Amino acid sequence: MSAPDVQIHAVATGKAAELVKAHSKPSPNGLIFYSGWFCPYVARVWIALEEKGVEYEYREINPYKKEESFLKINPKGLVPAIERKGFALYESLVLLEYLEEAFPDSAKIFPESAEERAISRMRIDMVSKKVIPAFFRTMISQTEEEQRQARKSFTEALKEFATYLSEEKPFVGGEKLDAVDISLAPWLSRLYIIEENRGGPITAEETSERFLRYVKDVTQRESVQNVFSDKAQYKQIYQRYLRNEAQSEAAKAVRAGRPIP
Amino acid sequence: MSAPDVQIHAVATGKAAELVKAHSKPSPNGLIFYSGWFCPYVARVWIALEEKGVEYEYREINPYKKEESFLKINPKGLVPAIERKGFALYESLVLLEYLEEAFPDSAKIFPESAEERAISRMRIDMVSKKVIPAFFRTMISQTEEEQRQARKSFTEALKEFATYLSEEKPFVGGEKLDAVDISLAPWLSRLYIIEENRGGPITAEETSERFLRYVKDVTQRESVQNVFSDKAQYKQIYQRYLRNEAQSEAAKAVRAGRPIP
Repeated sequence: MSAPDVQIHAVATGKAAELVKAHSKPSPNGLIFYSGWFCPYVARVWIALEEKGVEYEYREINPYKKEESFLKINPKGLVPAIERKGFALYESLVLLEYLEEAFPDSAKIFPESAEERAISRMRIDMVSKKVIPAFFRTMISQTEEEQRQARKSFTEALKEFATYLSEEKPFVGGEKLDAVDISLAPWLSRLYIIEENRGGPITAEETSERFLRYVKDVTQRESVQNVFSDKAQYKQIYQRYLRNEAQSEAAKAVRAGRPIP
Repeated sequence: MSAPDVQIHAVATGKAAELVKAHSKPSPNGLIFYSGWFCPYVARVWIALEEKGVEYEYREINPYKKEESFLKINPKGLVPAIERKGFALYESLVLLEYLEEAFPDSAKIFPESAEERAISRMRIDMVSKKVIPAFFRTMISQTEEEQRQARKSFTEALKEFATYLSEEKPFVGGEKLDAVDISLAPWLSRLYIIEENRGGPITAEETSERFLRYVKDVTQRESVQNVFSDKAQYKQIYQRYLRNEAQSEAAKAVRAGRPIP
């Protein structure tokens, strides 16, 4: 059997390509960032690296190809992954925590107190367990009724997320993105896929005025824009989700009703 | 509609009852631990409190009843939860991290280096995403073929967990339980439910000799034994899972093919 996802465009384009070029050499801190330019989980870690100002060497991996050399780093063959000090680390949320702990002098993406850090982790857990599965489900749903229900779950989860926002500051993290913002940001960059293919623009009635402002602020944030490739390049990939043919781990998990690995 | 799970035995029994009694008064550190004696997710936090030697006030909650006063603490109405310094915190894994950070002088359950902590979190993630859903699925499966397949997924996940163990030390954490051990321990205490109802004892062929020794070491550990109630009291609850009638959030999620909340 052929694996058609192997055919995706091989490298980052647009703004992301500039970032890749600027990070093509070994980093003094020894950090190697294994990436797939199109992957939203990768984008979480990439945005965090940029927000924190942590140096890294960028290496593009096609996770559908599972090259032997990369499987030695991450036996699951999945990006994002980080190699450093002889350790191979993966899982996007684990990597956010790792960057915070391994680079204590970099810009913080978690709050100071243990209690507030726990609150952040609870919110990130909500994003991972409610928002993201509903996003994928909305994309892969085929009948109109399934699409309507999935979009409802998705926008209800976004509405819950909106309760984390205040009127005073643009982001959950205040004036800068924190880990909670970053955990959701890549899917806000991809909101247009839902809007263009699954029932039109997300409305204030479905979420809130405040949330729509937040979407604008997050998607216009420099770090979020800089990790994004040419919009046209995503189309080939997301058409496969919209036809429910995608073979990514996330797609297979949502389809089978399993937790996204 | 009645919610039959409300009828479960109201309080801890056996060894756990002694622990409850010893922690019935407000704690000097202000920590209130909201518990359900029968819940394996609760047991994670309870074992961590005991292993770390962190003081706590124990309060029994029936999560199926959703009492108004408790819903103010945790709007999801779920245990385990911790109240401290005016914060209401929940999600068992968030609470393990919280205890480690909020009580830096207590016994450590995460490794020292950022890299090793990341490895621990990857392993805990594997337990949560692979081992536990497969455990619940094995319990609620009704046909022989479903049960056989679910048990196979479960024991394969246990086999993967076994790769975290060394010959030199009893636990992943070395001589003491760490967060990785604790994340799995409550389900090892409940392994007998699978063994007695879903195909007999877990064998070395399905997992490994090393893993079976580990099960013995973990389940005989004082902290693990001390949070366990009389075995007979669990029967009423688990009979409902075995008949696929349980209404816990975990049961509903596994049944619907959603991530366990």
